[in-house]
Amino acid sequence: MNRPHSATGDRPLALVDEHAHAWSPKTARARFRKGLTGPTAGVAAGHTQANLISVPADWAYDMLLFCTRNPQPCPVLDVTDAGSWTTVLADGADLRTDLPRYRVWRDGELVDEPSDVREHWRDDLVTFLIGCSFTFEWALAAAGVPIRHVEQGRNVPMYVTSRACRPAGRLRGPMVVSMRPVPPAHLSAAIHESSLLPAVHGSPVHCGDPSALGIDDLDRPDFGEAVYREPDDIPVFWACGVTPQAAVMASRPPFALTHAPGQMFLTDARDEQYRVA
Amino acid sequence: MNRPHSATGDRPLALVDEHAHAWSPKTARARFRKGLTGPTAGVAAGHTQANLISVPADWAYDMLLFCTRNPQPCPVLDVTDAGSWTTVLADGADLRTDLPRYRVWRDGELVDEPSDVREHWRDDLVTFLIGCSFTFEWALAAAGVPIRHVEQGRNVPMYVTSRACRPAGRLRGPMVVSMRPVPPAHLSAAIHESSLLPAVHGSPVHCGDPSALGIDDLDRPDFGEAVYREPDDIPVFWACGVTPQAAVMASRPPFALTHAPGQMFLTDARDEQYRVA
Repeated sequence: MNRPHSATGDRPLALVDEHAHAWSPKTARARFRKGLTGPTAGVAAGHTQANLISVPADWAYDMLLFCTRNPQPCPVLDVTDAGSWTTVLADGADLRTDLPRYRVWRDGELVDEPSDVREHWRDDLVTFLIGCSFTFEWALAAAGVPIRHVEQGRNVPMYVTSRACRPAGRLRGPMVVSMRPVPPAHLSAAIHESSLLPAVHGSPVHCGDPSALGIDDLDRPDFGEAVYREPDDIPVFWACGVTPQAAVMASRPPFALTHAPGQMFLTDARDEQYRVA
Repeated sequence: MNRPHSATGDRPLALVDEHAHAWSPKTARARFRKGLTGPTAGVAAGHTQANLISVPADWAYDMLLFCTRNPQPCPVLDVTDAGSWTTVLADGADLRTDLPRYRVWRDGELVDEPSDVREHWRDDLVTFLIGCSFTFEWALAAAGVPIRHVEQGRNVPMYVTSRACRPAGRLRGPMVVSMRPVPPAHLSAAIHESSLLPAVHGSPVHCGDPSALGIDDLDRPDFGEAVYREPDDIPVFWACGVTPQAAVMASRPPFALTHAPGQMFLTDARDEQYRVA
């Protein structure tokens, strides 16, 4: 799979505004609505972030089944009714304007990366909000696990793997993962803390040798940015909500909207709501 | 909602055969295929049991969305392709014959309770397998929590509550719960152990006063059998996979097949596979 060309060089919002971690989700959404763009790791601390994918109603069953059959990469937090741009997860939000940046796909090709998709909106679009691993970064940090990409002010690196998702109807595609380098002393906490948040990808799908996932070079991620690893760090891979985008690229539905990788939807939900114990 | 009349007085299988807990899932399915019926609590210890509901393809999106929007009562373990009676969760199983007893619904009315649904099968049926709280009873028992209905050789009591599920398309209905009386000293373990199994309903939805759920009389369950409670026992309520049946009764799709309450599908999956930590 070729990586789609991205025209944007958006800087992480946590670097753009040192107070971004303290924004309310409503404030974050209002700023994105006015045009602010950038990766959202570290924004509105403690509030759940979500991947977005909108497909025509004709494709909605296949997408919902794809998510159901692949719950680790595609944990569904909400599904809208066709044509609706509101969600129970965020009071007053407009899903067409309130993400920092979107991607527009036609026949599986990336055709635009606007910060607003009102002109692309269709009345038959069903929107899926899918859990994001940024959510468990707070739990990891609280347990003392260093988050390298946040330390380095970068978007998290994401990779297309050689693991196929279970197909559903016309949808098929590889699993995408995010990677965080974790010092050995913190590996247990990283696994345990994320495992308690199954609605945001849960425990890692793999630790260690990237070639086991068909990843050739950690320094060349398919989405996001490469991160520097300390010598002892173990690469830890979590299933990633960009997986539906990879399914769009592989399966070529006539039309889809998604978030731009790393530039997520900020919900009003609190991370603890998704913690099972 | 009126309770549907059930013609069956099937005895729990754990009473019928003292070795039922040691059956393999394959053995259990083969016996059910030959006509053995009865509630399956305690059968094939450690193997995951599932609720079943089959609806015409025209209703499958509504059902999948209903489950997605109500994950605690309706955690989806597998969805078949239309017309298929096989599942990835059980090698060689036939979903039309391998449950102890089924229910056949027309326009929301219970019309038959056969032990085999081959004569009712349709090529457009999509089958949903939904997590069952029998799965976490082993975890509770291992943590020392007494399971009253098993001790008493009864089916678990289930109640229609006053809590509405979030509707999806044409489907709406109340949440159904199962109830287990738990001694106060074991309440913490019961909550903790079940919370680690979110795919089989997870932590309780309520503990204590049944009227908070609109339940008038614990001795008159809507499904299953009443259980005797020790004086100090606290009634603990878990969301129940009979909820889709209640949605069928309330929403009246033209046709549906379900398991008979308490008479579940035995999968090859092991309970530990659904444990998140």
